[in-house]
Amino acid sequence: MSTLIFKNRPRIIGWYSVAGKKESEGPLGTTFSRVVKDEYFGEKTHEGAERKLFETAIQGAIQVAKVQPDIVFAGDLLNQIVSSSFAMRDIGLPYAGVYGACSTMALSLLVAATFVDAGVVQTTVAAAGSHFATAERQYRTPLEFGNQRPPCSQWTVTGAGATVLSADSKKSRLAITAGTIGRVVDYGVKDVNNMGAAMAPAAADTLARHFKNTNTKPADYDAIFSGDLGQIGEEALRDLLKDKGYELGENYHDCGKLIYSVDQKVDMGGSGCGCSAVTLNGYIMDKFQSGEYHKVIFMATGALLSPTTCFQGESIPGIANAVVIEEVTE
Amino acid sequence: MSTLIFKNRPRIIGWYSVAGKKESEGPLGTTFSRVVKDEYFGEKTHEGAERKLFETAIQGAIQVAKVQPDIVFAGDLLNQIVSSSFAMRDIGLPYAGVYGACSTMALSLLVAATFVDAGVVQTTVAAAGSHFATAERQYRTPLEFGNQRPPCSQWTVTGAGATVLSADSKKSRLAITAGTIGRVVDYGVKDVNNMGAAMAPAAADTLARHFKNTNTKPADYDAIFSGDLGQIGEEALRDLLKDKGYELGENYHDCGKLIYSVDQKVDMGGSGCGCSAVTLNGYIMDKFQSGEYHKVIFMATGALLSPTTCFQGESIPGIANAVVIEEVTE
Repeated sequence: MSTLIFKNRPRIIGWYSVAGKKESEGPLGTTFSRVVKDEYFGEKTHEGAERKLFETAIQGAIQVAKVQPDIVFAGDLLNQIVSSSFAMRDIGLPYAGVYGACSTMALSLLVAATFVDAGVVQTTVAAAGSHFATAERQYRTPLEFGNQRPPCSQWTVTGAGATVLSADSKKSRLAITAGTIGRVVDYGVKDVNNMGAAMAPAAADTLARHFKNTNTKPADYDAIFSGDLGQIGEEALRDLLKDKGYELGENYHDCGKLIYSVDQKVDMGGSGCGCSAVTLNGYIMDKFQSGEYHKVIFMATGALLSPTTCFQGESIPGIANAVVIEEVTE
Repeated sequence: MSTLIFKNRPRIIGWYSVAGKKESEGPLGTTFSRVVKDEYFGEKTHEGAERKLFETAIQGAIQVAKVQPDIVFAGDLLNQIVSSSFAMRDIGLPYAGVYGACSTMALSLLVAATFVDAGVVQTTVAAAGSHFATAERQYRTPLEFGNQRPPCSQWTVTGAGATVLSADSKKSRLAITAGTIGRVVDYGVKDVNNMGAAMAPAAADTLARHFKNTNTKPADYDAIFSGDLGQIGEEALRDLLKDKGYELGENYHDCGKLIYSVDQKVDMGGSGCGCSAVTLNGYIMDKFQSGEYHKVIFMATGALLSPTTCFQGESIPGIANAVVIEEVTE
């Protein structure tokens, strides 16, 4: 079975989000741990800035948690996930790279939780992030090119988030209790500017399996978040899931739709590993803190393409990983 | 502590290796499960061939193990690890991408073992692979360019390997009993044609931590394998480890040196995710089968660069992940 039930319920003992200027001007602007308005973050390149976002988020979360983690699990969109790896060069802790495209925050959480649940380590960190300028350059064209954006496109979030997990149940009542690992699902979408449509089938597959395997339904959760389906993908997910017998209600939200307001000209919404990472480690955790949430599904979605696969005429496979975050009483 | 001790000792119940023509002509040629002499493997592109190597290795190992795995952990060198992801599109099982450059076979094994050890799933697969032509194109120049190879360069192995792990202790006496997760170590090497030198410090760091944390020494193992340090890296590792108080004896081998013979003109030896993956799932497992090995350290090494980081003047960070494979009596 691909739904994981964590019997030791790894605790969330720290989190941190760092986001860019545009994100700070959106509806979630006040929920981030830190805002960095300089798109270069004091570095010479946008790639250097992305790396520094990772360092800031990981170090920030570790400081909040006041622990020395055993392993950091992280990943990003850049070729060979260099933002994560180079950030870890300076941080110096043991590190395992994970890659689930924009589903990476949920994937890194699932892996980090399993290591704690197994008892092989005490404390782990999960992290993910992205940068608008590096993603445009790598997947589309450098910003200087002035490429025109089609209306179904999404806007890569500049930001990174990190979460610290611990085996010590006394440290927190917030736990990761379950999760479902994604399958690669491909409905043949070839439009690289319409990621929401490419990822929605994978999201429906993961959520339906999760509900079935855990014998739950959408209404059993205070909220269900998808990562960055955007407006087209969100509607597609509702339709596809209805076909599988599950109706998403008003408790369903998409981080990509939440993070920017309509007047910010981001077309279908936010995207990128950073989109769900900063929403989780800001807005969502705030809602747990304030007592509004007690049990949530955090599902991040990813499009597993590369520019090479697109040039070679391949369609875009999607994946979605779901994590249950829950307030536990003991 | 970053050394993992697996109390439930996940069992190895199946393995499979598929390698190319050049590899089949080397000293390990008879140890691979399958040899594919066509560099395109019947596909239109080398990238398609690499993907098919993954499918072949993963499906092959699953057939040998006669199980339906819960999750596959895999990674490769191509941007956005598309060989793994696209292979999983057809295989259809839940999938988590991992990335440790050429250390990926060991990293995927460590993560796959932890998931079984935690009891969250019953059966997992770990896989990694590479292709000479896709790696040359992405990291250096397409083969058609006829680039001259400097003498310290290594030859990317064409091949993939997969290992199936199970929670069922009755199914096999071969187990993964421990492992050490790597740290990102960077001694400032900037020569992209000398990966062995860039990775050796990380290998020394991982092995020294492993020996210390497990209170063992090199002589306690029938064999210790590094992944693809090649001739320069192997010598550097011996020297660096001696400085840390551990002397590697004749039981130390490098997969990159084993896989080709001197007259195959591969300069310093083999490299790539496939190098350690096919050596583990062929030669090394054969030695366990024949009773020659009872306890082995399999440590794969990775260089965490990307062409972009090199162009931007960055040095090459290395990482190494170590796994203990052991015959257990109960």
